[in-house]
Amino acid sequence: MTNRKGTLIVLSGPSGTGKGTVLKHFFENYADDKIKLSISATTRSPREGEVNGVNYFFVEKDKFETMIENDMLLEWAAFCGNHYGTPKAFVDENLENGCDVILEIEVQGALKVMEKRPDAVFVFIAPPSMEELKSRIVGRNTETDDVIDKRMETAKWEVKNISKYTYAVVNDDIDKAARKLKTIVDAERLKVEKINLQF
Amino acid sequence: MTNRKGTLIVLSGPSGTGKGTVLKHFFENYADDKIKLSISATTRSPREGEVNGVNYFFVEKDKFETMIENDMLLEWAAFCGNHYGTPKAFVDENLENGCDVILEIEVQGALKVMEKRPDAVFVFIAPPSMEELKSRIVGRNTETDDVIDKRMETAKWEVKNISKYTYAVVNDDIDKAARKLKTIVDAERLKVEKINLQF
Repeated sequence: MTNRKGTLIVLSGPSGTGKGTVLKHFFENYADDKIKLSISATTRSPREGEVNGVNYFFVEKDKFETMIENDMLLEWAAFCGNHYGTPKAFVDENLENGCDVILEIEVQGALKVMEKRPDAVFVFIAPPSMEELKSRIVGRNTETDDVIDKRMETAKWEVKNISKYTYAVVNDDIDKAARKLKTIVDAERLKVEKINLQF
Repeated sequence: MTNRKGTLIVLSGPSGTGKGTVLKHFFENYADDKIKLSISATTRSPREGEVNGVNYFFVEKDKFETMIENDMLLEWAAFCGNHYGTPKAFVDENLENGCDVILEIEVQGALKVMEKRPDAVFVFIAPPSMEELKSRIVGRNTETDDVIDKRMETAKWEVKNISKYTYAVVNDDIDKAARKLKTIVDAERLKVEKINLQF
């Protein structure tokens, strides 16, 4: 199994599907040390408790722009005045070392990665239904009606792109969804191109 | 999950890799009722205990030839003066009903199925090494040196085709190999084209 290159697994889905929670549960319960979570770079300030190099790579805006110019990001986007992106180096070093890397990004970012990395595996975390998604977003009780409508608009566009993904996991139960993610990771390791057989 | 079409899973590998044993262990321990084992048609006589429609469909030679002429077989081959083939009807009916179907066939037959059914999933059951394969064949104590040499020749040709397969499972432990097969079956059910999502 030496020399086996890792697999890039891109996880996305609409805001409110609980993809972050599924991923956290996966890493706490089902991951081994051969799979790493990609750490994003961001220009936003660290929130309380966030650690540089653990939650994010916190960088200044001009540093981020240099990263864009030097093609050091796999994808990047701007949200609420801040930049977020995926540093290539972390991803590629781990893949070369035979580790799988999971990337949690927005659907828009995932579509960009599909072009650049057709050998990656794309997992769509889907809500059981759009009604359920809406009630989850409403249930957070933190958003105005306008924001909720905007989110649902975006979510409708996002689910339309599901057929471009490799796998779909419906998140109706966090543990089940995390185990399905493990099944996908395990199966990808059995792909013939990932196995080093010496005959 | 209604209307979901099943997946055709073709399992093969050199004689002596224990693919039959792995498959039996899989069906006894890890299969649900949504996966069926394809039953071959053969012109050979039933051995003691073999039941028509369970172990094989036992057919007369002219019936078999009619099946070939009418394109009723997914693949067929002759061994030791008898014909063996995979009836399409059993496979297609189950796939249409949303069941997965596992087909255990020789590598030569699998290569034919690759052309006809590119949407199928191909699993190569590999020996840990060619030395191990030889010692398993020798260990059966039922074959002459000539037969062993012939088998090893065939096996060498067969493993050269491994890169044409989707997945590879090294059979170094029957239970582990059967669980890997289950992982593959479960992951294939998470493929986006297999999931009926109504958004």
